[in-house]
Amino acid sequence: MKKASIVSIGNEILAGATVDTNAAHLSAELLSIGIPVVSSYAVGDEIGRIVRGLELAGADAEVVIITGGLGPTDDDLTRQALAKFLNVELKLDSELLEDIREYFARRNLKMVARNEIQAFLPAGAKALPNNRGTAPGIRAESDGKLFFAMPGVPPEMKQMFAESVVPELRRLAGGQAVAIRKLRCFGMGESTIAQKLGSIMERGRNPLINCTTHYGVITLHVVATAENAETAERMALKDEESLRQTLGEVVYGAGEQTLAQVVGEKLIRLGKSVAVAESCTGGLLAKLITDVPGASEYFTRGWVTYSNEAKSSELGVPAGLIERHGAVSEQVAREMARGARQKARTDFAIGITGIAGPGGATEQKPAGLVYISVDSDRGCDTKRCIFNHERRFVRLRSAQTALNMLRLKLKD
Amino acid sequence: MKKASIVSIGNEILAGATVDTNAAHLSAELLSIGIPVVSSYAVGDEIGRIVRGLELAGADAEVVIITGGLGPTDDDLTRQALAKFLNVELKLDSELLEDIREYFARRNLKMVARNEIQAFLPAGAKALPNNRGTAPGIRAESDGKLFFAMPGVPPEMKQMFAESVVPELRRLAGGQAVAIRKLRCFGMGESTIAQKLGSIMERGRNPLINCTTHYGVITLHVVATAENAETAERMALKDEESLRQTLGEVVYGAGEQTLAQVVGEKLIRLGKSVAVAESCTGGLLAKLITDVPGASEYFTRGWVTYSNEAKSSELGVPAGLIERHGAVSEQVAREMARGARQKARTDFAIGITGIAGPGGATEQKPAGLVYISVDSDRGCDTKRCIFNHERRFVRLRSAQTALNMLRLKLKD
Repeated sequence: MKKASIVSIGNEILAGATVDTNAAHLSAELLSIGIPVVSSYAVGDEIGRIVRGLELAGADAEVVIITGGLGPTDDDLTRQALAKFLNVELKLDSELLEDIREYFARRNLKMVARNEIQAFLPAGAKALPNNRGTAPGIRAESDGKLFFAMPGVPPEMKQMFAESVVPELRRLAGGQAVAIRKLRCFGMGESTIAQKLGSIMERGRNPLINCTTHYGVITLHVVATAENAETAERMALKDEESLRQTLGEVVYGAGEQTLAQVVGEKLIRLGKSVAVAESCTGGLLAKLITDVPGASEYFTRGWVTYSNEAKSSELGVPAGLIERHGAVSEQVAREMARGARQKARTDFAIGITGIAGPGGATEQKPAGLVYISVDSDRGCDTKRCIFNHERRFVRLRSAQTALNMLRLKLKD
Repeated sequence: MKKASIVSIGNEILAGATVDTNAAHLSAELLSIGIPVVSSYAVGDEIGRIVRGLELAGADAEVVIITGGLGPTDDDLTRQALAKFLNVELKLDSELLEDIREYFARRNLKMVARNEIQAFLPAGAKALPNNRGTAPGIRAESDGKLFFAMPGVPPEMKQMFAESVVPELRRLAGGQAVAIRKLRCFGMGESTIAQKLGSIMERGRNPLINCTTHYGVITLHVVATAENAETAERMALKDEESLRQTLGEVVYGAGEQTLAQVVGEKLIRLGKSVAVAESCTGGLLAKLITDVPGASEYFTRGWVTYSNEAKSSELGVPAGLIERHGAVSEQVAREMARGARQKARTDFAIGITGIAGPGGATEQKPAGLVYISVDSDRGCDTKRCIFNHERRFVRLRSAQTALNMLRLKLKD
């Protein structure tokens, strides 16, 4: 199986001013072609550093993908570094110069002298057309290995990669095919999932099963490799099926699905509706629900009742109840959900009250304590959670847990 | 000047399933300490690859920062690789084991056997405490170089880095000093700002001025380098002052300040309060306001009135008005803001109605059309915006524009 290595060039990456999203995009694309990335290097705008990056990448893999450093300014040195690495001169490509002149003329822009540098290529290399900018890419060969240099600007890079690099790499990859399935899980920790799955998560297995976690959502990646796409797909599906069997209702969805999407689809299928009443999440739950296009089919309104007075005046939570049990209590969460369902006349309503922190904690009620109620005509379920994390995390986990409670209720 | 190198570990990075935001965060932090990152490596979950990454990074720099691969599952191999690289055995640290047991006990969680691996350290290495998860970090020395391994989960990594790594690195950085100031701008495009600033943005200048953009917020980074912290700080402040002069009220804040924070501080200073009534932003504006700890001082409630009926029943927007002008209209935005201010009895209220897309557009009203009203006892201002972007962007820009309108109103 052919392998790839990535070299990202630019001081802005090493200064942390830019997040290198190109590397992630290229990695996912290359894997789906069947040429997995085995290493990725980020280096600054210095010829010596770039040459060393090319050497390392070339030692790792048959295909080297380079991004950045092809612009017209003084700190764009990929062209020069590639020539040095290949041990050849830079040569003016007069056709390329014409192309660049035309690019400016078409846009009624003045071409400044420094743009001419973009018409130079290492001797023996080929230009890759850029339909979105002035910097052409470069394709070069060395010791039977392929080097593709592309601009760092993501839309220019993506188009050039898709149009000029992918077709050649597909031919190179030949028979090999990779199929990827993602399963989204919520409500169980990473180590418990790993324990339950056991040997299926072993390294070196095919399909390979990877596990990533992002604010409580655990994603299982099933990566199957085979002679052809059909077999790879069948292998991945088979593993997906057995993961679903083992994990049961912990698996909430697949691919890029969010909890809010899955809940939305269920509500539509069942012809049901939901309203929300939020205190500590302060609008985040409504925001997650309305992130989904078409949410108006099942969501008509929500309340952010941040103060005690708002909980009483907007949702009818009795002031005495708040006084007796405190705003952060099972009783208040229930009454918020009930009040919201009554006022919105929906099938379901969610009430959330808690202490997002860092302030607001008392001896009995620590920061991270959250009560979540889901009310329906079959009664009201309440969950008491303690999220031992920072404010942002407490809020997001609370909203996600609420969505997950609703999801499980919608299963019956 | 001391240098740093980063090693990011994880198949999910090389598979493109995860964007490596840790590297960017660490790079920015290290630069501000005065230890610039000169190279960054991403490697997969394989002991041999990790060891090679550590060798390369150790050859590049005096400080090596490693993230990922410290979890409890079979594909977490950083611990083993670090021991191999250091040429020592892994040893059980019984204190560490106690800490991990306690972590689970405190949360009433069952500790599974595989979590015990997290109590092993390369002989001679030191654990870095993790206050947010089970995986401790590792500090090791080799040939006078420092190696810090931290979990890949961003909040865990960030806290560990700030608390356990930064203090030691500050001492190490000694002489050379870098001062960084960030100015946050809203309401003007990147190229217009660049045009206004002119030659001050030239490369190679000290202080160096970089510009990054994130969903409408433009950040100007002023990076000053000098012999000592005082001089660097003075140089950076001088540039900050001249940027502020040139850009005026477009600069809304500094450092990591968000629009919601700046608005919150102003409201507290003036003893004023705000309520919100949201349609297309669906809770996002309230969420941004309540992202700020202590928002309850000036924010008591908000409404998400997604349907027409909700706009009438909750905020008193006349049904006839909605029928005549449509829910997405200046008139309805005004009435939403007015209704919210009246019901919440606040000094200010914001009303937002629009078409976030992709659905819902008509010939007269395209997706991305949003009306934003800010109501106060001095009258109601309304802005008509067209955001020519995807749903997520339309919603975020709408909420930010609303906050910015309120900010400018609070200036008088």
